[in-house]
Amino acid sequence: MASNHFGTLFRITTWGESHGKAIGVVIDGCPAGLPISEEEINAELALRQPGKTAYVSPRGEKDIAEICSGTFEGKTTGAPISIIIFNKDADSSKYEPIKNLLRPGHANFTYLEKYGIFDYRGGGRSSARETACRVAAGAIAKKLLALEGIDVVAYIKEVGGIAIAEPSLSDPSLLREKTRKSPIFCPDETATAKIVKAIEQVKEEGDSLGGVIEVVGFNLPVGLGDPVYEKLEANLAKAMLSIPATKGFEIGSGFQAARMKGSQHNDQFIVGAKGEITTASNLAGGTLGGISTGMPLIIRVPFKPTSSIMKPQKTVSTQGEEKEFKIPEGSRHDPCVTIRAVPIVEAMMAIVLADALLLNRASKT
Amino acid sequence: MASNHFGTLFRITTWGESHGKAIGVVIDGCPAGLPISEEEINAELALRQPGKTAYVSPRGEKDIAEICSGTFEGKTTGAPISIIIFNKDADSSKYEPIKNLLRPGHANFTYLEKYGIFDYRGGGRSSARETACRVAAGAIAKKLLALEGIDVVAYIKEVGGIAIAEPSLSDPSLLREKTRKSPIFCPDETATAKIVKAIEQVKEEGDSLGGVIEVVGFNLPVGLGDPVYEKLEANLAKAMLSIPATKGFEIGSGFQAARMKGSQHNDQFIVGAKGEITTASNLAGGTLGGISTGMPLIIRVPFKPTSSIMKPQKTVSTQGEEKEFKIPEGSRHDPCVTIRAVPIVEAMMAIVLADALLLNRASKT
Amino acid sequence: MASNHFGTLFRITTWGESHGKAIGVVIDGCPAGLPISEEEINAELALRQPGKTAYVSPRGEKDIAEICSGTFEGKTTGAPISIIIFNKDADSSKYEPIKNLLRPGHANFTYLEKYGIFDYRGGGRSSARETACRVAAGAIAKKLLALEGIDVVAYIKEVGGIAIAEPSLSDPSLLREKTRKSPIFCPDETATAKIVKAIEQVKEEGDSLGGVIEVVGFNLPVGLGDPVYEKLEANLAKAMLSIPATKGFEIGSGFQAARMKGSQHNDQFIVGAKGEITTASNLAGGTLGGISTGMPLIIRVPFKPTSSIMKPQKTVSTQGEEKEFKIPEGSRHDPCVTIRAVPIVEAMMAIVLADALLLNRASKT
Amino acid sequence: MASNHFGTLFRITTWGESHGKAIGVVIDGCPAGLPISEEEINAELALRQPGKTAYVSPRGEKDIAEICSGTFEGKTTGAPISIIIFNKDADSSKYEPIKNLLRPGHANFTYLEKYGIFDYRGGGRSSARETACRVAAGAIAKKLLALEGIDVVAYIKEVGGIAIAEPSLSDPSLLREKTRKSPIFCPDETATAKIVKAIEQVKEEGDSLGGVIEVVGFNLPVGLGDPVYEKLEANLAKAMLSIPATKGFEIGSGFQAARMKGSQHNDQFIVGAKGEITTASNLAGGTLGGISTGMPLIIRVPFKPTSSIMKPQKTVSTQGEEKEFKIPEGSRHDPCVTIRAVPIVEAMMAIVLADALLLNRASKT
Repeated sequence: MASNHFGTLFRITTWGESHGKAIGVVIDGCPAGLPISEEEINAELALRQPGKTAYVSPRGEKDIAEICSGTFEGKTTGAPISIIIFNKDADSSKYEPIKNLLRPGHANFTYLEKYGIFDYRGGGRSSARETACRVAAGAIAKKLLALEGIDVVAYIKEVGGIAIAEPSLSDPSLLREKTRKSPIFCPDETATAKIVKAIEQVKEEGDSLGGVIEVVGFNLPVGLGDPVYEKLEANLAKAMLSIPATKGFEIGSGFQAARMKGSQHNDQFIVGAKGEITTASNLAGGTLGGISTGMPLIIRVPFKPTSSIMKPQKTVSTQGEEKEFKIPEGSRHDPCVTIRAVPIVEAMMAIVLADALLLNRASKT
Repeated sequence: MASNHFGTLFRITTWGESHGKAIGVVIDGCPAGLPISEEEINAELALRQPGKTAYVSPRGEKDIAEICSGTFEGKTTGAPISIIIFNKDADSSKYEPIKNLLRPGHANFTYLEKYGIFDYRGGGRSSARETACRVAAGAIAKKLLALEGIDVVAYIKEVGGIAIAEPSLSDPSLLREKTRKSPIFCPDETATAKIVKAIEQVKEEGDSLGGVIEVVGFNLPVGLGDPVYEKLEANLAKAMLSIPATKGFEIGSGFQAARMKGSQHNDQFIVGAKGEITTASNLAGGTLGGISTGMPLIIRVPFKPTSSIMKPQKTVSTQGEEKEFKIPEGSRHDPCVTIRAVPIVEAMMAIVLADALLLNRASKT
Repeated sequence: MASNHFGTLFRITTWGESHGKAIGVVIDGCPAGLPISEEEINAELALRQPGKTAYVSPRGEKDIAEICSGTFEGKTTGAPISIIIFNKDADSSKYEPIKNLLRPGHANFTYLEKYGIFDYRGGGRSSARETACRVAAGAIAKKLLALEGIDVVAYIKEVGGIAIAEPSLSDPSLLREKTRKSPIFCPDETATAKIVKAIEQVKEEGDSLGGVIEVVGFNLPVGLGDPVYEKLEANLAKAMLSIPATKGFEIGSGFQAARMKGSQHNDQFIVGAKGEITTASNLAGGTLGGISTGMPLIIRVPFKPTSSIMKPQKTVSTQGEEKEFKIPEGSRHDPCVTIRAVPIVEAMMAIVLADALLLNRASKT
Repeated sequence: MASNHFGTLFRITTWGESHGKAIGVVIDGCPAGLPISEEEINAELALRQPGKTAYVSPRGEKDIAEICSGTFEGKTTGAPISIIIFNKDADSSKYEPIKNLLRPGHANFTYLEKYGIFDYRGGGRSSARETACRVAAGAIAKKLLALEGIDVVAYIKEVGGIAIAEPSLSDPSLLREKTRKSPIFCPDETATAKIVKAIEQVKEEGDSLGGVIEVVGFNLPVGLGDPVYEKLEANLAKAMLSIPATKGFEIGSGFQAARMKGSQHNDQFIVGAKGEITTASNLAGGTLGGISTGMPLIIRVPFKPTSSIMKPQKTVSTQGEEKEFKIPEGSRHDPCVTIRAVPIVEAMMAIVLADALLLNRASKT
């Protein structure tokens, strides 16, 4: 099935395996006249770069995105924008020892059964490498959103059970600044210190940690998202669950809503400071009936602990024999993939909002 | 935007407002040769019927689905199946007193802003009434799944903070039987009693409760779902978040994954009783890399407490004046919408799986 | 496959068989705020009505469209518009004698092979009955186009080899008036008389005639249609070839272009009367690179002669025996389906343009 | 709008401008296990190569396709196949003299109006350069079709009014052989000689010729194509009209059908040599009701004469001044684009059939 694209009017199609020549993304449907540059895209890509800090895996590669089409004199032309990132550091020889083994928590079992092909190298399409393409596309989506004053900021909410203090949502720029200053994209300095320590410890144990990312959309107009099957949160949920290692999704009150009463949960309507209609609280998380209310759009996404760990595990070979599985020495794996997923989550919200923004142009005669 | 359809090959398109002549669904892409009957569809519809028990709203209507196309001599023909449910009990006069008021927790504010139309009657397309169409379509999806031995069972997992004991997943028929015996679709008798009491109490208070539904897909083949943007859980998440009042989604370990270590979370591969490859645990919840593993597919969905409550709330009129809002006497609203959502959640998983089953036919040469 | 819908943002989904309870169409994505009425839709439906004149089949039924959703106080709300037409006169008993026979020129052979179902009644989904739904949807599309001043007029260009004189395209209203005055939708009175005679004669012979329809879009803005695979003429071609009995498509010069030189064929750019850029001729037929030029959009569609004829033909039974085939006495079939197809062709162009109009809102930042 | 993709399950997305770094195509949804190689793709690309013969433009570039993803050990993996062709010979300096002029018969006028961008170089996305990507994708589609024994052959049917003798369709391999032997893809030697002469003459005049291509699908199973809006011929028509310079489409009898009687046009059913049900003639051109009959699928497509001619023409500048337009000396343009379009037409039929083949897997339970 053609399953490598996302979006209706602002649509991305990604391609490439972790150990192939290159990976890439085609952004189709971006309106003409938007200024974009390779520098801006590469700045975003640098954020998810392996080896950026000690807390992510030490792969030496540095991704460089090349825009191969869709721009003229620094602006989009309405043509599809093709971005290519060549793979520089894709030595697959280290996978030799585990060549015929199913990897616990990985997709090589299901891919083998579905496609009848066993690509033993680094995960193929199921690898997080694909997400670099989302970040590149997200950089362009953000520029489109910025024209309307919309901003998107993602950050670490919790890692290994250590939660951050509730951040202020009053100033998106400040929130981003705090987040980017942290080596783990965490706006709370105290929590950052604790989480860094926890990651270091689990790394020593050859184990891994999970975490939760929160992402907030600021300054949305009222009206983004469409009824019934194209609700804004429905597309956000799909976007988030398409990211490797995600196990869930919440908007606003999320699972806590299940433990509340209606009188507590309903956000009451009030007249805002500028005479606009707004709500006194925001348990809804920024939508009603799947359509943006103008309040901050608040999403949370849990990530499982990295599946690739140094500890030995039980597994089965492709021939059906029970075996022991151990990631080969010298392999590079993040002790906590949640950290590196922060820019990916941010990109996916931006892509969903860019599409919703264009679709919304057709709502009225 | 054309936002009222769901699915790629097995595709549903729904239409109709809560207070119009009728509602309906067109099921397009159902393979030819499937035996279906109005009786089977109506049996499913009866499950979500208002007034079925004291714990849901006492509307007198009984939905009757009519198949208007797509079958010949009791079997599907490959043509679109149109199912219509006429609205019998749609008196909108009771909405007169609140005609110009935004309803806290409802979508009339966002619809007004998006479309410039204020339909003050019972919720229009944002009403849960639309979900009857999903249940009708789900009845057909289930018949298609049954041909492959796949079964889907949803049940109440938690209401008002009262959780059920972990149910056994070894026998889907028994689980369904227990669930259907409960007046609130809850397979745990003790929890049922407590929850019924909690609902009665909140009803007296003029308030409402939220809850969590769990839905399990049994006996899936390995291989359903597609890589990257059409992961099985991505489409399930979209499906669930498209249901009114949902605030989140979990697969398998869900948010708990964020608090676990890799060594705890990885489901280790083993050789099963029949020589098949399986996993020793199922924290993944039935997928790896977005593709079904053959283990039970386990999803949880939180619902917010019913927004329509009898307690007075603050609101604003469409003219921008601050007002008090109170649901008119005699209105019928469920004190806990989660109960009636159980068959809807079940239907949506069935629809996602039916589509994935057909799409999977194209995976190999 | 889900194959019963057409369009991206302005999307129609049709359902129903010629001999079922009803047929219908769901129009999803029509912007909110458009005034529509059942009267307007029924006026369009009356045009393709069987029995309107002696030159189409004398079925007694009169189609009445009911709007079942999507409007409030006479205007569209942004919700899907469901239109249902109940089948009144669908006696299938007359098909008994030919129950097990393949019908020459019909689809019952291919449907049987594809779906394994032999619905011997009047054509099922392959029947021209489905096209009533297109006309209903087209009525709404035309209202949307009218807001931008766009007009669409279709007419008979040729029947049984009798061609009309080239009509003037300077006044769409006059062209429509002339066309509607003719019993066969032909703006040329002399040709009308000849064609009527030819149809009468072929009817007596128990045979049928083919023909060509021309349809013109007037007053399009420059810019409708999208590059590469969504060219305006590509979608028009798909739309036209989806109509039963069509065998081809031309835009502008069409097949004549193949016999011309570049110096003859290129429409040279000039400055128009109002200072606008236009072209001196319009061999292109209203598009360049798949995008509208602002000149009239000119399309031609050939229809094969009606397949259902009274003359005996050779055929094979579903059991594979060679048989003689003869349409049963008393069956009602048009001697020239091209006549009744005129409003259908008009509707399909309107639907394509309505979609292109909405899509074009996303072309620039 | 996202308009650069084609197909549902076998889906291509193309990108790149005639004067950019590269062009490319992503083929998404190709089933796993299909053997493909760069050699096979490049062999197809060589067919549409500029400079192959004297009758197409003498550009020196030779396209080399690189497969960047989607294969492992020579077979498709189910992942998207990314093919890139770098542009080697894209000197745009020669466009300087006509930098601000609308080009008669070209799309730069409509692109300017739609997107507000004037890319004066060689046509951007509207250039025939994009079609190299279709040929590359078509090479893969053909391999998939070959697994089912399906073959596709396109050839010149007519150029400058010179038509070929009706070719025999009894042996696809022989037909291809004859076609490939001709310098202009024409299976009729006598016509080849005449057409070559006509092209040489028009080239001397600085003018251009149009033509007609016929393409035939052989050995289709009964059942490809889907009812109503996804009829096989509807998708073929869209595919063909998406090719630059096309002005029409015919299947089987095409426009001739309009001049026939039903008794002449109906293909009568008979029992074939192997006991199969077939038709005595094939005026339908291989489909009934939009679904393949198993008879040869016969399509014709007219191309306008090349727009870029050396003769001076009238035009207007982007500033709205009337000017004279002349293609700069040294520019390379085919005197008859129809020749080079033969492999493109062949590729597009292959792509439509590959998609229909996969979709057909979902027709029955």
